[in-house]
Amino acid sequence: MRNEASEPFVQRQKRAAAALQSAGADALVVCPGADLLYLTGFEHGHAGERLLALVLNRDGSGRWIVPVMNEPQVLPHVLPGQKLRAWPDGEWFLPALREALDGVRAVAFDDEARAGFALDLLSLNPAPRLVKGSTITRRLRMRKDATELAALRAAGRTVDDTISEAVSFCRPGRRETEVEQDLRVALLRRSPESTVAFSIVAGGPNGALPHHETSDRVLQRGDVVILDFGTRRAGYHSDITVTCCVGEPSDPEARKVYRTVWEAQQAAIRAVRPGVACEDVDRAARTVIERAGYGPQFLHRTGHGLGLQVHEAPYLVAGNRETLEEGMVFSIEPGIYLLGRFGVRLEVIASVTSDGMSLINAPSAPELPLST
Amino acid sequence: MRNEASEPFVQRQKRAAAALQSAGADALVVCPGADLLYLTGFEHGHAGERLLALVLNRDGSGRWIVPVMNEPQVLPHVLPGQKLRAWPDGEWFLPALREALDGVRAVAFDDEARAGFALDLLSLNPAPRLVKGSTITRRLRMRKDATELAALRAAGRTVDDTISEAVSFCRPGRRETEVEQDLRVALLRRSPESTVAFSIVAGGPNGALPHHETSDRVLQRGDVVILDFGTRRAGYHSDITVTCCVGEPSDPEARKVYRTVWEAQQAAIRAVRPGVACEDVDRAARTVIERAGYGPQFLHRTGHGLGLQVHEAPYLVAGNRETLEEGMVFSIEPGIYLLGRFGVRLEVIASVTSDGMSLINAPSAPELPLST
Repeated sequence: MRNEASEPFVQRQKRAAAALQSAGADALVVCPGADLLYLTGFEHGHAGERLLALVLNRDGSGRWIVPVMNEPQVLPHVLPGQKLRAWPDGEWFLPALREALDGVRAVAFDDEARAGFALDLLSLNPAPRLVKGSTITRRLRMRKDATELAALRAAGRTVDDTISEAVSFCRPGRRETEVEQDLRVALLRRSPESTVAFSIVAGGPNGALPHHETSDRVLQRGDVVILDFGTRRAGYHSDITVTCCVGEPSDPEARKVYRTVWEAQQAAIRAVRPGVACEDVDRAARTVIERAGYGPQFLHRTGHGLGLQVHEAPYLVAGNRETLEEGMVFSIEPGIYLLGRFGVRLEVIASVTSDGMSLINAPSAPELPLST
Repeated sequence: MRNEASEPFVQRQKRAAAALQSAGADALVVCPGADLLYLTGFEHGHAGERLLALVLNRDGSGRWIVPVMNEPQVLPHVLPGQKLRAWPDGEWFLPALREALDGVRAVAFDDEARAGFALDLLSLNPAPRLVKGSTITRRLRMRKDATELAALRAAGRTVDDTISEAVSFCRPGRRETEVEQDLRVALLRRSPESTVAFSIVAGGPNGALPHHETSDRVLQRGDVVILDFGTRRAGYHSDITVTCCVGEPSDPEARKVYRTVWEAQQAAIRAVRPGVACEDVDRAARTVIERAGYGPQFLHRTGHGLGLQVHEAPYLVAGNRETLEEGMVFSIEPGIYLLGRFGVRLEVIASVTSDGMSLINAPSAPELPLST
């Protein structure tokens, strides 16, 4: 194809080829996932097992390697001048990949593809040198353009509009799984064109596990409950976390912990502007929590980028000296987790503007909200 | 833990360590996914981004590398004598991985983990040599024991019980997405403890794409429809494909194509017994289809193993000289795809017995079923 719809992909692939030049790599190999969606508009829900890849060379030329069965699905995404090589199951993909990488010495390989593919590539003789594909693509994807920002805002509205209903689902006697099911239905009712990307409902002691998997546990009066959920629409995600309580909290520390997390989030929000190092935003949130005596209970980084993936660059984490730039979008989500008791996490999405920041989501209230 | 529940995992890890010895590898690194579930019982729905791994050494010792936030979830799966090293976001996982692999030269690395992890591992100095983790685990997982066979049969019953209802959903005027939604509800009604692992509804020309993604297309009277779906229960999967027609077929070739696929499936079923090469089962199906003149339209291998994954070893594909052994379980699913017109695929699950085979699913009828 080469038409108006393909123009953004032509430009993005050009930028990727230029990035290959600067990085001293000869070719980029991208498989179905966020990078390929970004570069070509192609995506597929179950094309991870057989190698399907765009091989993009530093001279800007490209070649697709595609399982025979997926050829009709890929064809609309092949740009003029690009080749497509379809391979049948009985041959497997290595001959096609060897052909495409003939003479290539350094390959930037998709971080998110199966490790088995990378190891197959290393078994070629001579084997290319492999670097992470994200060294090429993360710089491109990290700064969102106006269209991407609009998509992120639209996704954000869906979760914002659902927050108060989500909190109201947290009633005594309801299972976490039931609350999750209600939440999913509510999200899709507000935005039928979206899908639910993920959801976590973590009540009482389950809230002390940042990546709890929603369970059969029945919510009790007094439980602190973490609700972390997000949607996907036209490729772009929302991601929000609210913490509420099923009536008056049974744990006397709940309000203090909530307030501490809220203040940490505010401190991080205030730290966001172009030129600030990612780790300094993390530091701003962490300092508040450490001063309140909960440092060891803040179990994760302060935030992650958001876009075609729920977690992507930039990461707001100690050690990340990258500086914020206009167009970057990320979560600010400090948390405190008291093992065996409860957890509090508050998440909001921020975008960096030319002189500061703007919130894509509604921020949480300063005091612990009660669901009943 | 070390109790009755952990005993199968102790045995499986012993066998994996022995396999490392035979393969000349020093350590196996497995991340969340089917291999880790098989070896330890641990699984997690969203633990793919931060490295969480069991490092199993050839001497049988083991060490877990775990994000701080997941430590309480992993602890119940740590066997006596195994170490656990939790790493915080601000440190990232490489120091822990370097520590765990100190002195290790050859690592069998999880094929299904993110390629980025393998590339990080290769960036260590000195870097270990990497081979695919499946070289160790596939031999262990390929032959199912009695408990696994029972789990696969139970999962198979759920889809078998739903077939006639699934066919009845294919009525003129219904969208593929609506049929899929009804199908998912029907599956969960029959087996509330299951999840729907995947579903494809492909009507008319969409059926010519073996990996069609269910679309908004409205079914027309006369459409041939492929329904391919599967469930997961206690880790084990079902997978079935039926093809039906919305009333009398509008394409005059539909019945002949259906009958050819059915005969190909029968020929493959007859070929299954211990000692036969995987590729010979593929050949048996393919010969029937080639003789009928549809060879180029049979776009994929004849089958794939089924167990903790929907697609796993053994693969019934040209070039695979591995021989069938008692306890292997796989699909037999020939298909014919006429681009722009329709497709037919019939899938049944077979298990190899000591002297032949036994079907885990009900096979399709010999003539094209009509939904109305």
